[in-house]
Order: sequence, then structure tokens, then C-alpha cells
Amino acid sequence: MNLALKHILILFVLINVSCKRTLAEEQDATAPVTEIQNDIEKVEPPHWWIGFKNQDLQLLIKHPNIGKATAKINYAGVSLVKTHTADSPNYLFLDLEISETAKAGQFNITFQLKDDSELIQTYELKSREKSAEDYIGFNSSDAIYLITPDRFANANPENDEVKGLLQQGIDRTDGYARHGGDLQGITNHLDYIENLGFTAIWPCPVLINDMPKGSYHGYAMTDFYKVDPRFGTLEDYKKLASELDSRDMKLIMDQVANHCGLEHWWMKDLPFKDWVNYQENYEKNIDNWDNKTTITSNHRRTSNQDLYASKKDNEGMTDGWFVSSMPDLNQRNPFMAKYIIQNSIWWVETLGLGGIRQDTYPYPDKDFMSNWAGSIMAEYPNFSIVGEEWSYNPLLIAYWQDGHKNADGYDSNLKSTMDFAMQRTIVEALNEEESWDKGLIKMYEGLANDFVYASPKDIMVFPDNHDMSRIFTQLDGNITNTKMALSYLLMLPRIPQIYYGTEILMDDFDKPGDHGLIRTDFPGGWEGDTVNAFTGEGLSNDQKDMQLYLKTVLNYRKSSKAIHQGKTIHFAPINGIYVLARVTDNETVVHIINKNETTQDLDLSRFEELGLSGKSLSNIITKETMIWNSSLKLEGKGSTILTTKTL
Amino acid sequence: MNLALKHILILFVLINVSCKRTLAEEQDATAPVTEIQNDIEKVEPPHWWIGFKNQDLQLLIKHPNIGKATAKINYAGVSLVKTHTADSPNYLFLDLEISETAKAGQFNITFQLKDDSELIQTYELKSREKSAEDYIGFNSSDAIYLITPDRFANANPENDEVKGLLQQGIDRTDGYARHGGDLQGITNHLDYIENLGFTAIWPCPVLINDMPKGSYHGYAMTDFYKVDPRFGTLEDYKKLASELDSRDMKLIMDQVANHCGLEHWWMKDLPFKDWVNYQENYEKNIDNWDNKTTITSNHRRTSNQDLYASKKDNEGMTDGWFVSSMPDLNQRNPFMAKYIIQNSIWWVETLGLGGIRQDTYPYPDKDFMSNWAGSIMAEYPNFSIVGEEWSYNPLLIAYWQDGHKNADGYDSNLKSTMDFAMQRTIVEALNEEESWDKGLIKMYEGLANDFVYASPKDIMVFPDNHDMSRIFTQLDGNITNTKMALSYLLMLPRIPQIYYGTEILMDDFDKPGDHGLIRTDFPGGWEGDTVNAFTGEGLSNDQKDMQLYLKTVLNYRKSSKAIHQGKTIHFAPINGIYVLARVTDNETVVHIINKNETTQDLDLSRFEELGLSGKSLSNIITKETMIWNSSLKLEGKGSTILTTKTL
Repeated sequence: MNLALKHILILFVLINVSCKRTLAEEQDATAPVTEIQNDIEKVEPPHWWIGFKNQDLQLLIKHPNIGKATAKINYAGVSLVKTHTADSPNYLFLDLEISETAKAGQFNITFQLKDDSELIQTYELKSREKSAEDYIGFNSSDAIYLITPDRFANANPENDEVKGLLQQGIDRTDGYARHGGDLQGITNHLDYIENLGFTAIWPCPVLINDMPKGSYHGYAMTDFYKVDPRFGTLEDYKKLASELDSRDMKLIMDQVANHCGLEHWWMKDLPFKDWVNYQENYEKNIDNWDNKTTITSNHRRTSNQDLYASKKDNEGMTDGWFVSSMPDLNQRNPFMAKYIIQNSIWWVETLGLGGIRQDTYPYPDKDFMSNWAGSIMAEYPNFSIVGEEWSYNPLLIAYWQDGHKNADGYDSNLKSTMDFAMQRTIVEALNEEESWDKGLIKMYEGLANDFVYASPKDIMVFPDNHDMSRIFTQLDGNITNTKMALSYLLMLPRIPQIYYGTEILMDDFDKPGDHGLIRTDFPGGWEGDTVNAFTGEGLSNDQKDMQLYLKTVLNYRKSSKAIHQGKTIHFAPINGIYVLARVTDNETVVHIINKNETTQDLDLSRFEELGLSGKSLSNIITKETMIWNSSLKLEGKGSTILTTKTL
Repeated sequence: MNLALKHILILFVLINVSCKRTLAEEQDATAPVTEIQNDIEKVEPPHWWIGFKNQDLQLLIKHPNIGKATAKINYAGVSLVKTHTADSPNYLFLDLEISETAKAGQFNITFQLKDDSELIQTYELKSREKSAEDYIGFNSSDAIYLITPDRFANANPENDEVKGLLQQGIDRTDGYARHGGDLQGITNHLDYIENLGFTAIWPCPVLINDMPKGSYHGYAMTDFYKVDPRFGTLEDYKKLASELDSRDMKLIMDQVANHCGLEHWWMKDLPFKDWVNYQENYEKNIDNWDNKTTITSNHRRTSNQDLYASKKDNEGMTDGWFVSSMPDLNQRNPFMAKYIIQNSIWWVETLGLGGIRQDTYPYPDKDFMSNWAGSIMAEYPNFSIVGEEWSYNPLLIAYWQDGHKNADGYDSNLKSTMDFAMQRTIVEALNEEESWDKGLIKMYEGLANDFVYASPKDIMVFPDNHDMSRIFTQLDGNITNTKMALSYLLMLPRIPQIYYGTEILMDDFDKPGDHGLIRTDFPGGWEGDTVNAFTGEGLSNDQKDMQLYLKTVLNYRKSSKAIHQGKTIHFAPINGIYVLARVTDNETVVHIINKNETTQDLDLSRFEELGLSGKSLSNIITKETMIWNSSLKLEGKGSTILTTKTL
């Protein structure tokens, strides 16, 4: 048996069921349960835990004609509250209540069929490995490394191809084919990531995408409980999580509540007619997702907030398919809603996650999303979730963040939103010439918008991501500007996220915006790569310099309370110079952008309120020290980062 | 004596004072007061009224060494609560309390000087002419015609030049000189304005600007109680107000609380050292105000909201001079604060105003501005004030509007803000090609931002104004686009404002953005003009067509409850067509923009929720009727406005 195929089956082993007419209907709840080979198709979640605040658990049972069966459970502390049939005869949904007295262990669920035969399903309740409060989500003390797993490192060539899956083969010359990167590849290079100064990773989804094409990106899931065998096994995923944990680093899982892949197993036999939304009436607009022209729905995301949005546009937004290969899940179906929430919690608990990144946040039903995030945060009070709303409009970024006082009363329960506005602003500001309303003033005024955010420091900021032209390309290949963009965003009251390869100036100049090119293989991740960014072998001087620059800034940031949670003060840019400071009682970090090509003598009298007069400050890049007096010499274009801390 | 000079003196006649040693100290409050010729320099406000909710009145008295005098008042219902000296010996401030029992009439204020001589000031309290509730401010049922008085119509050539003023002469060939337009010129053409469909006018300031140059624009006031004699007299201003009132039209006064002209009378002898703010430390930036390069202060308006703004930038914003010829008033001086508030109320009461437009709103101390607006609104609960914040950022537009829940607790008391964001958005949207994120979608998404405004329908929208390139120029001379811009903004839940001359396609192509050119003389306003836009004589067909177009739309709007206060529904633009509807129970107005050059058959099934199926609708421009069925033929590029009302 192919090793990878063996991995696929691991999840199923968690579910052990058999058909036995003779087994006693009543079991002694304390007696050990005999595990029996399963022939029930699906029981999801495949196991659960005791000790959640929410004692409800809803099991999805899929099996031919199971809808006609009567279910029974006899286990101390667990009650079968209600059984629901579905539109399809092949599903049953069981509402269980798991009381505080329930103990970890296995029990049987007995299904009595119409012909009096019985199916018996062994189900397990586990003990939780750590307390709810110990799931500490990513926050402004973190710096997150975003990885496209297929493109980072291929540790296990044996899982590159997995027989039986719809898409076969790897082809590293095709930006839209699979390249072979895997979970083990990430795990193997955690030293590199940690040394760079990152404290968290966000890999794009690694659940199975058994799709005929484009499966590498991971956003078309065909089973929400299964790791894609081409990325590895659940054990590999858990190993990555525990290796990160041992380094005090966080694992962020990329989840998708809006849609699944067209080849998802349930698409052939939907439990309910309204399990997914339908496409018949949606508007045929051209979208440009994944760099392919696709007919997609009328996704006008502003309809989520717009007082004047037509019902038609609202429906198009909530119910339209993201792309034609991704059916839109109907979260207004209460069984679907519970399914998604439980799935998320299952992964938090299974991997001991340090956060969730939720894809396409404004696309599902927004009341559901509030319930979803609220349900998770209720179980894990210190957790973090970031939602992707690709909007340059601070009004929308603000709207989606937990604690923002929305006029419509909406409370998202979402701790973190994404600062696409700041991303674009930084690029514009650095690319254009300075004037009264252009250039650095845009960064200054962009940051001034923070007054509208419920919690600016919980917002994620980034120079680019997996769906966007590389920052080095956006900044026209200007290394100095790239450093300025990075150093600025690493100083902000934000959670910074940086995409793998930014540290070696990855670009997409050849075909700007091309997703395949953006997600270029990380050099050194494949055996035989002539360039190895992990070791530095074969990198250009510019690449090495950027790697070192980012490493230096990130490692300073890692222990800088001023950057994590200090007060922010900034001074309106004048003459192409923009000064921003982060301040705590014990540490002041001053970030200065000079856009002038020439050396500037910066008059420091304007910054008197920073209280730095006469103090010694160190340049975190050059390690040089200076005394903050009347003026500061800025040697040409670039960022200068000074700190009162001794380096 | 020059007729105009005579007019200047009219205001002074209201103040009658004399120096009399023999007049009895105690007067009988009921006995008639003898009016005596004045030689006290200033008493402001020059008179006041009984019956305000706020019973406090603070009089500014200016006279040589008046600071050493003791003041006495003996008039039933009026108490002199406190006398304040100032830094200059030539001022006294008197706090009066005017109780509910005070009757209209005149009384003397006696100033006893150190040498035992007395000065006696006769002061008048008038009865109010209408009840506070009857001051109905402009609202979404109005359409406002903005006028630069010097450039609209010159009814009285005799007041073109006024001896004794610093700027002499008129020169219609110089865009920055005075051209001779006056208040009577506006009054003479109210038929024209009313027939066009406007219900309110906003003339730029007409108070005296006795400045050596650039006095025509009116924003450098040198006396806040005096009409510029080149515009006419206070009586002319009152006549304009009453003529408007008799037509049920509203007069909006353009006021300036932030600054005065450098030649303001008090600049030679300031009451207090901190009566104005000083410029020593302000940053030397280049501003582009009035199309001239001027050294001005560091006006970064976001510092009003910015959580991270440096103190330095805050000071620069609040205390910096707007331009070097306009000293910044210090509204944190409580006497200045009262002075400005009383001055505003004096004008509301004197002219029976239908609103105030407040210049440079975010520049003064913002707590003062809240008190200012609050004080006026407390006296006139149905009044309207619009503040000028020139920002394209909806966050700031929202922040300044009364009722917006600001995180910092700020409540502006300002009913109306200005929608610069929508102005720019409309221009961008119409100028650019359609795509997923360009063109009409910007208007759609711009309007969707309304969810953040406390009251969208109280926000002012405009195609351009006196400080901005003409809309026809902004839209590259495209008449169809100009009509689309105008018709769209006239359909919005907003208060529309249109600058004089837009109806005849005024432009500034020769020197785009040039303030002198933007404020071109209205043809027909001057004797001997070969073109007369009032009569239509000499206008091109395009100009006549635009005049008629605007007249038709405005006159429909005038009585359209659906546009004034109806529900708004809009549909995301598809294929270059954007549909917006305004709906009441009895009236539906559908506004359709078609950006395609070719004829389009619009499938109406998408708009089913409007409930128009089978109904007859009329085109408000062509008067043609159609039945709302399966599709609608749109004849090429342009707006279509359909109504269910019978025309």
C-alpha cells in the first residue's frame, strides 16, 4: 500500500462501527466498549471532548438509509436529546448533550433499522489537553509568516502524488499545478522561520482538495476533517503544531466557512436541499479570482452594510458561489451552521491552535459568522481569529471588528480584521512623489484612521499576501522602498504578517499579479535546488541583505514592549520625512522615513514632546549610538529605527 | 459724500453714546431714554433681543481707557452681572443677564471714569420678529444655489468703488480683482434662481473685507458686524432675505469662525494677548489656497481625530493661521468664544436666516465649534448649519455630524457636513472606464458608505464649489457626463448644492483650478454683457439645453417627497448600468445611468422588488410614458429618470 494512502485512512480509524444484531441494547456505561470495524460511511465530528462550556454536540451520520433508523445512547453524562432526519434518507443528525459529569471514554451509538437490524457506532469523548485559557491567540506581540505549503518545502517526495485523487502529478514548471511542498517541509524549517524573528505561522489550507485541478492552493476543500495526503497526515499537522508550541510559536489555521470544493463528498448526496446555495439566478459578472476569468456571482460586499442594498444584491452576496468550482455553503441551514462551528472547534482542540484565519469573511451569512466567531471565542477566551475582508475601506475594516459600535447593532465577535487599506496606502505613498496630499502624508493620514477602530493593535497588517502581487513588485523593484514599507508596518500598532519569500525579494515582475508566479517555490525547499534561501547559498547580495534586514527588525520587534503595546505618536510628514514613535515608560522606539535621496539634517526641536533630549539612542540596524540633541543626520533615502534600549 | 460711504455708517448709527457729566446716575427704567450722539468706538453686539433661551449677553466695549471705568445699568429685567477688564486698557466686557421679564426698549449704560466723568451708552433690546421654531433650516427638500456675490450680478455700479477702503477699483479682466457684483444683483435675479428650481441660496460672505487685495472672495473679514459697502448695505442684505422669504426660499449665510482678515479693526489693539493665535512656531509648508503659493501652517486636519497625533501637529492645526493674511482667532479665549457665538446669533436674528455655512470647520478649536453650533441650535431647534471639512474620507465626514457616536465622545452639534467624498467619487466614476472595481461601482460603493452617517439626508452634496474646478471641466467637457453627475446627486438622500453657472456649463479649461477663472462673471449680470444667461440671449444650444435640463430636474425634485425623504434602494452596477430608486408609498423615482454609448435593453426582472411591474412611469425629461414590463430600452449614454407620478 502506498504510504500516502495509508495516511488517508487514519482519520477513519477514529470511527469504529459495526453491524451486530446481537449486541445488548443497554450497555453498562462504565464497562469498556469493544471497538468494532466500521462500515458506517461518516460520523462527524469523528470524536469530541468533554469539558466544553457549550454542552451541545450535533453528530452528522451518513449511511445508506440511516434516516429511517432510531438511535440510542447509553453513557453516563451523555444524553441523546433529539434525532433529526434530513431531506436525503442517508443522513441522521443527532443532538447530544454532554454534561459536566461525563467522563472521557468510548461509548456505542446504536441505530435500530426498520428491518430490526442494528448498526452500532463507537464514539469517543476525549479529555482536553490544556485549559481553555491557555489557547493564546496571535496578537500584536507576534509576527506571522504566511506560507503556501505546496510552494515552501518538499520534505517528503513520496507524498507528491497520491493515487486515487483526481489531480495527479506534480509539475514545478506550471504555476497552477502542484509542486510537492508539504507539512513536513514547514516543520523541517522552523529553525529558519524562528531565527528570522517570526513567532507564528499561517499556512494556507492543508485540508484535502480532491479537485481535478488547482488543488494546490487549498481553498476548495472536499473534506473538512481530512488533511490532504499530498501535504501529509493529521499526525504531520499535529507534529508541526507541537514543534511550534515547543518554540513558543503559534500555529494559525486557514479555515473556509463560505464554500467547499465542487468535489466535496457531500455534493453527490446533500443532506438537505438547502445545504448549499444555488447559482441559477446569480449575475454573470467577470471576476478575476486566481488569475483566471471565471463567471462568478454578484459579490458586492458592501451590501453587508449598505442601508440601500437591494435584496437582489444581498442574495447575490450571501448566496452566490465564490467561483464556479466552489459551491456556496448555506449557513442559514442550522445543521450546516453547527457543522462548521464544530469543525472549527475540532481543529482548535486537535492542533492546539494559536489562531484561525477565516477566508472570504464577508461572503457567508453575516449573522452566522458572528455566531461562529462568538462560539469559538466563548470556548477560548484568549484566542484570536482574523477574518479576510479584502476592502480598502476603513469603514468596513472597522465594521467587522469585535467591539465596534455599529449603527445596525451588528457585533462580529471577530478579534482581528485585515488592513488592506494600510497595505495599499503604504505602496501608493512610497511609489509617488511627495506633495501636500501625496506620498508619506497618505501613510500618516491612513494611520490617523485608527480612531475609528475598536482595537487597532488587533488588526493584521501586511505588505502583500498569497493573492496579491509581491511587495517588491508593487514597489517597482525598489529595495529601499521595500525596506521602508516593511520597517514601517513592523512598527505599527498592528499584528504584522509577511508572506514567505519577501525576505529574499521574491517578485512577480514577469507576469505581475499572476497567482502561480506570486506563489513561487521557495528556493532550497526542494532537493537539488541550486539556490538555497535557508542556508543563503546562491542568494544575491541584495537578497542576503534583505534577509538580514528583516531578521534584524523582526528580532528587535520580538521583545519590544513599545512596539507590542506602547503608545503611538506620529508627526505629520514634512519635507519628505515622517517620524513615528512607539513609547512605553522604559522604551521609546523612533521610526524615521526619509524619502529624500540626499542627506538631511533633521531638526529635532519639533519632537520635544518625546522627551528624548540628551538621551542616548541606538540604531537597531547599524547598532550605532547617538545622542538626541538638536539635529539628526539622515543619510539619504531609507528608514532609520532608533531605540532607547541598549542593544 | 459718496453714497456708498454713507452706507458704511448705517451700522454705527445703531450705537448712540455720549459723554455727559450731568446725567443722573439712576434712570427710571420705564422712562424713555434719550438717544445721544456716540463717540464710544465700539459696542458689540450693536443691539440684542429679548426672549432668547440663553439669558446671558456679553458686550464688548472699546474706547480709549474704558478699561478703567465702572459700568452701571438700570433697566427692569436686565442686570449687569459682571464687568471684565482686558489686557488692553481700551476694552471692557460686560456680562448682562436679560431675564424673561425684560421688555424691548432702550436703556443707558453708564461708564464712570477715573476722573469722575461719565460716558453714557444707549443700548437697545429688540423684540424678536418670529418664533424660534420658525427658523427652518435648509434640508433635503432644498436645492441650494451657491453664489460668489462679486461675480454674479452688478445691480449698483455706484458701490463698485468705495473711497477709504484699502482696495480700490474694479477690473473684470483680473480674476483676483473685484468685479462689482452686489447683493442687489442677487435680489434682482431671484426670479431666475427660483425658476431654475432652487429653493435656497448660499452667497459667499458679504461682510466687509477691507483688505489691500483679494477682498472680493469675502473670507478675510475685517468687521463681523458690517456688510461690505461694495456689496451694499445691511438694508440690502435684509431686503435679499425678505425677498427670499416671500418666495419661501432660504438664505444661508457664509460665516467664518476660524479667522479674520489681517486688517480687522481689532488687530491694531487686541483686547487680550491671546485674542488671536500666533504664528511663530508654525511649520512652513506650502499651501495652495486661492491658487497662490502661500506659506501657511501645518494644517493636518486628521489631528482633530487622530489618536496618535503629536501635540505639535494639534497646535499647528488649531492655532496655525489659515493663510498669512488671515489671523487665526483663539476661540479658547472665552471672550472670543462668546463674541463669535453672539455674532452668529445676531445675524440669524437680523436676517431671519435659513441656515449657516461655516467655513474651514475643522480649523478652530473643536470643542468651541461644538459649543458654537450647540448654542445656535439651542436657540433655533429647526435650524441648519453645514460645516466645511474638505475631506474625501467618510470617517471624517461622519465624525463631524451631529448624532454620530464618536469613540472619543465628541458631539459636534453640527447638523450637516459636506460630502467631498461623493463629489470626487462621482467625477472619478464617470471619467473612467467600467471594470469590476472602477467606474459606476465607485458611486454605488460610495453611497453604500452612508451606513456610517448619523443622518445621510442632512449631508450636503455638490458637483463642485467656489474653491474647485468647475464640474464641466472636471468631467473633461463631457456634457452627457455632466448631466449624469447632476441628475445622480439630485436623486440622492442629500441636500444638493450647485454653484452658479453650472447650468450654463461654466468651465475653467483655460487654467484648470484657477480660482479667478472658476469664479467667472455670470453673463448678463453686468450692463453691456453680450451674453445674458438670465434671458438666454447669446447662449449656445448646449448651454440652453443644460439650463433646461437642470431646471426640469430641479423642478421635479422640488415637490418630490420620494427624493426628499423616500427610502433609497440601489442595485450594483452591471454592464455599465446603475439603477437607483427613491421610494415612498405614493411615488417611486427610478434613476438609471447608462454608461454604454450604444442602446441597451435593460432586463427589468432584476428590479422586481421595486414593485413596478405593469405600472406606468413617466420620463421626467422627455415626458414620455412607458409601462414597466420585462425590459427597458435605454437610448445610449445618459441618465434616465422615471417617475410613477403623473407629470
